[in-house]
Amino acid sequence: MNIVLPDGSGKELADGATVADVAASIGVGLAKAALAGIVNDQPVDLSAPVAEGDSVAIVTAKSDEGLELLRHSTAHVMAAALVDLYGDVQFGVGPAIEGGFYYDVKTGRALSPDDFAAIEARMAEIVKADEPFERRVVTRAEAEDIFADQPFKLELIAELPEDAVITTYTIGKFTDLCRGPHLPSTGKLGAFKLTKLAGAYWRGDAEREMLTRIYGTAFFKQKELDEHVRNLEEAEKRDHRKLGRELGIYVMDPLAGAGLPLYLPKGARIIRTLQEWLRRDLYTRGYEEVITPHIYNADVWKTSGHYGFYKENMYFFEINEGDDENPRMTEYAVKPMNCPGHVMLYKSELHSYRDLPLRYFEFGTVYRHEMSGVVHGLLRARGFTQDDAHVFCTRDQVVDEVVAILGLVDHIMSTFGFEYEAEISTRPEKSIGTDDMWEHATGALKEACERHGLSYDINEGDGAFYGPKIDIKVKDAIGRTWQCSTVQVDFNMPERFGLTYRTEDNTEERPWMLHRAIFGSIERFLGILIEHYAGALPLWLAPVQAAVLPLADRHNEAAHELALKLADAGGRVEVYDQNEPMRVKIAKAQSQKIPYMVVLGDKEIENGTVSVRERHEGDLGAWDVEKLVQTIKDAAL
Amino acid sequence: MNIVLPDGSGKELADGATVADVAASIGVGLAKAALAGIVNDQPVDLSAPVAEGDSVAIVTAKSDEGLELLRHSTAHVMAAALVDLYGDVQFGVGPAIEGGFYYDVKTGRALSPDDFAAIEARMAEIVKADEPFERRVVTRAEAEDIFADQPFKLELIAELPEDAVITTYTIGKFTDLCRGPHLPSTGKLGAFKLTKLAGAYWRGDAEREMLTRIYGTAFFKQKELDEHVRNLEEAEKRDHRKLGRELGIYVMDPLAGAGLPLYLPKGARIIRTLQEWLRRDLYTRGYEEVITPHIYNADVWKTSGHYGFYKENMYFFEINEGDDENPRMTEYAVKPMNCPGHVMLYKSELHSYRDLPLRYFEFGTVYRHEMSGVVHGLLRARGFTQDDAHVFCTRDQVVDEVVAILGLVDHIMSTFGFEYEAEISTRPEKSIGTDDMWEHATGALKEACERHGLSYDINEGDGAFYGPKIDIKVKDAIGRTWQCSTVQVDFNMPERFGLTYRTEDNTEERPWMLHRAIFGSIERFLGILIEHYAGALPLWLAPVQAAVLPLADRHNEAAHELALKLADAGGRVEVYDQNEPMRVKIAKAQSQKIPYMVVLGDKEIENGTVSVRERHEGDLGAWDVEKLVQTIKDAAL
Repeated sequence: MNIVLPDGSGKELADGATVADVAASIGVGLAKAALAGIVNDQPVDLSAPVAEGDSVAIVTAKSDEGLELLRHSTAHVMAAALVDLYGDVQFGVGPAIEGGFYYDVKTGRALSPDDFAAIEARMAEIVKADEPFERRVVTRAEAEDIFADQPFKLELIAELPEDAVITTYTIGKFTDLCRGPHLPSTGKLGAFKLTKLAGAYWRGDAEREMLTRIYGTAFFKQKELDEHVRNLEEAEKRDHRKLGRELGIYVMDPLAGAGLPLYLPKGARIIRTLQEWLRRDLYTRGYEEVITPHIYNADVWKTSGHYGFYKENMYFFEINEGDDENPRMTEYAVKPMNCPGHVMLYKSELHSYRDLPLRYFEFGTVYRHEMSGVVHGLLRARGFTQDDAHVFCTRDQVVDEVVAILGLVDHIMSTFGFEYEAEISTRPEKSIGTDDMWEHATGALKEACERHGLSYDINEGDGAFYGPKIDIKVKDAIGRTWQCSTVQVDFNMPERFGLTYRTEDNTEERPWMLHRAIFGSIERFLGILIEHYAGALPLWLAPVQAAVLPLADRHNEAAHELALKLADAGGRVEVYDQNEPMRVKIAKAQSQKIPYMVVLGDKEIENGTVSVRERHEGDLGAWDVEKLVQTIKDAAL
Repeated sequence: MNIVLPDGSGKELADGATVADVAASIGVGLAKAALAGIVNDQPVDLSAPVAEGDSVAIVTAKSDEGLELLRHSTAHVMAAALVDLYGDVQFGVGPAIEGGFYYDVKTGRALSPDDFAAIEARMAEIVKADEPFERRVVTRAEAEDIFADQPFKLELIAELPEDAVITTYTIGKFTDLCRGPHLPSTGKLGAFKLTKLAGAYWRGDAEREMLTRIYGTAFFKQKELDEHVRNLEEAEKRDHRKLGRELGIYVMDPLAGAGLPLYLPKGARIIRTLQEWLRRDLYTRGYEEVITPHIYNADVWKTSGHYGFYKENMYFFEINEGDDENPRMTEYAVKPMNCPGHVMLYKSELHSYRDLPLRYFEFGTVYRHEMSGVVHGLLRARGFTQDDAHVFCTRDQVVDEVVAILGLVDHIMSTFGFEYEAEISTRPEKSIGTDDMWEHATGALKEACERHGLSYDINEGDGAFYGPKIDIKVKDAIGRTWQCSTVQVDFNMPERFGLTYRTEDNTEERPWMLHRAIFGSIERFLGILIEHYAGALPLWLAPVQAAVLPLADRHNEAAHELALKLADAGGRVEVYDQNEPMRVKIAKAQSQKIPYMVVLGDKEIENGTVSVRERHEGDLGAWDVEKLVQTIKDAAL
């Protein structure tokens, strides 16, 4: 019998060989490392037989599939432990998920996180016993018999297709309805931890029963689990929703609606500072700002094509373009993107090749539909402001424009200490534009990356139907990656709106068009920055750069004078002039992550100095007032 | 017989006396100046009889009624002239209007403005003939007979109530159906001028016949007419829609929809400069910026009350807050005002009396429904950005806050050289709030005006139902007035949203709330500025402050270097580096109303100077480069 390995090579095996035999035939190390297999693209157990001509890959701890397998098997072990501990438990579903696993269960008594230790201890015993995961193919009647006291499982069985192969997995006395595959035995489990409880409707249906969802996570190595737990804790501490509230940056009001943040003064200061910083930079790079409305006649979206392929994400309403007697209801929409506005501005004037490249930017607030269940603080909202720009240029200018955009990306991301990676998405199956256009555009994106010495992955076929793109993913201080910047070539808009420019030869040509955003969404980027810096934004961006702390009430006047001086130097300053002990003032300023705490007492006023405390470095001693003023001045835009 | 004069005094007259007799009884001057009368609030001819107990006022050229009378009579004279010149003319209606009069007519041959001279000449002859306006009361049958060949007049007659007194006015051979009153005779007419032609559907109904509307204007003195015509011409030259296009400030795209301007780079620069200028000023005045969404759940508008009383001006749509399987359609709206957002922000935090006054400002773009027929460039649009602020304060702080706001108004308006007037609108019949609140609030508005030495008119009963207000009307360079700033007290919002603050006595109180905007709408204010300055915005606000004009191509490099230097100084600069004669470059820069045109040639480069031309003053001679840099620097924000 011959099978095919992932590298294309063949392997001869005895008839009746299993995936485990394939691993063993390759080497002793792999035999030991093997956890499961992938046969003809289907994940299977290590004990699964292989057949003539099968393509076979071995799953080990090193792959994503291995980790998923581990987590799924850990969920089973947790289920077995629950039965051992609590007897009558009814089970819903228990899949591996991003970052771990869960199992939805119904127990006789309510569980609490206090029960986790006992469950984990019982799980450890099951692991120690190294019980095999035993797979069985059963008939529908057998399955109904086995799960006679598991109503949720019976419901799942009833919905399986007539000809479905029904399988169960057993460890010890615990049997679960499951497609598999699983680890060979519980002894192969690694480090695990139960993390939280939540309510979950059976099948996600609010009309059905509420089950308890037990979340856990698992890794092959304790060290990996520890790091994960540390990162989770760190991420929780850095959660921009929590910090956003504590630092007075934004609020969500249920009355206003999901995904619609309202920005408090400190949030507005950060957003305006980010915008002004970028605005000045963009002007020096030859961009020009434009401003376009938030609503348009639906004809705009019909012309752009969004009415066809993006309608579900848009909010439509009607305007009466007639009068009360002769109403003429006309469809309008809130804009989900800024491009049609910029295209209409381009089209409103005649253009010659001499005007190109033309670079319009806008801080354009757009609204896109997200389900209320998936909105998440500033990171996924229904309304957000793109630092959006569109470049109109000639075919020959495309590569230089992309190079310039990548230069801007680098400037922005390195300012915040972000490392980043590039991904180029190429032509999908359904697409417009000629082969020549796709090749030229994709080549330009690659060449631009290369000219920047920026390595890139290729997402084959993952481009938009209207052109290829570069996506930039940044890595934050605790190792998470975030999709931010994007550069897209668009063959669609110039065609649909009939854009032209006059060439040197006095003929009419279509301009090429690039979409690009660096932050992506300014508010989302702010969310990322809050988590990246754990709320301690850099001096130039901090909403309050210095808190002036008068030692006693008699120093309040001098404190306000100093604050005025710092404000004149372009600083953002608060005076803590309430009658409170200094340690309270410092604690408050520290909790607000204010870069400089500036203490003023008799001695300082007499000497023309201030006692400076930095939020990370602590006491910096006495500074001349001028040094503080200069520090603040240097941080101004 | 006794009658009553406007000052309340009585007058004894012989039975059968007319309005003219009343005038004569008062004095010889008034007898001469008298044009008509107002008897018991009804305008009547000078020849109308008065009766015992009538209240009688005399209309002269000095009153608005006199001017309206003049214009209405001039319309009749024009109609008479048309009949004399063109014979068979059918007449619609011919009223006096704001700024003049019109008559809708149907003539055998199409009229053009070229005919105006002949018509005016014939009118002058009728004036010279000094024919009396003869009033006649006729029966319905007589009227139908007189206007037998005037189908439009017959239609009007048919619609008169059964018991209507039907009157005609005759001058020479021309008789018109008319309620009157009129001047005593055509000799009393003043200076007049026909101004334009337009099509007008009979009775404004697009299904009915299209008539020709002949517009004209009239004044008692030639000087007044000349000034009016000059102002009209000037207004036309200054029309912000024309200049907005020519200066590259904004465009309207019919595809986008009516009342939704798109701002080109120069428009965006002006708007951002205005905003940044105001933003900095507001921070020094203790305001803090906030940012709120453009859409909200309709519950916000139900809570605020706008859902009840403002719904027709708002744009509503639905969002599915469920999912595809269990849709839960929920009403949302595009915001027509920013107040609920600011109120929600206030409510999101606890407040003590120590925090007050709290002043939130936002450059909030709002959308309000306007009929497509009435939108007018930037002056009346569906989308615009308010420089909106809300002050939350204690009852005792209201007057100081209003004083501060009026100080801000004065700073802004005097920066642009606008004179302005104040109007205070008081409690209307339908209103909320106690007598005490209204008295306190209205008193505060009056006191604030008085403390500023700002005189004000009272619009009795014209306040909003939720509180009194001050409206500020500015007067532009050609004498037109524009409603811009407003300060309103709001008793409604704090109540509806249940706002509170903790007092010094640790009790809960409702804060008082002020709405205020200075520009009103930034875009509308921009429209007003364009017309006020005839497009030549002041140096600090001009989208391009200097055009650098190299004498020949070999000076282009130095020109770009200079431009960079000026940009570094905070300047907005363009280089006219195309190969064109200097006079063309200057003409272009002049037509763009650019403050400084900076010529660079061999001599200038050698001497480190520039030849400077100012848009109004012309040639300013050679300047050191540093002087130019300093001039630009001084104009930076």
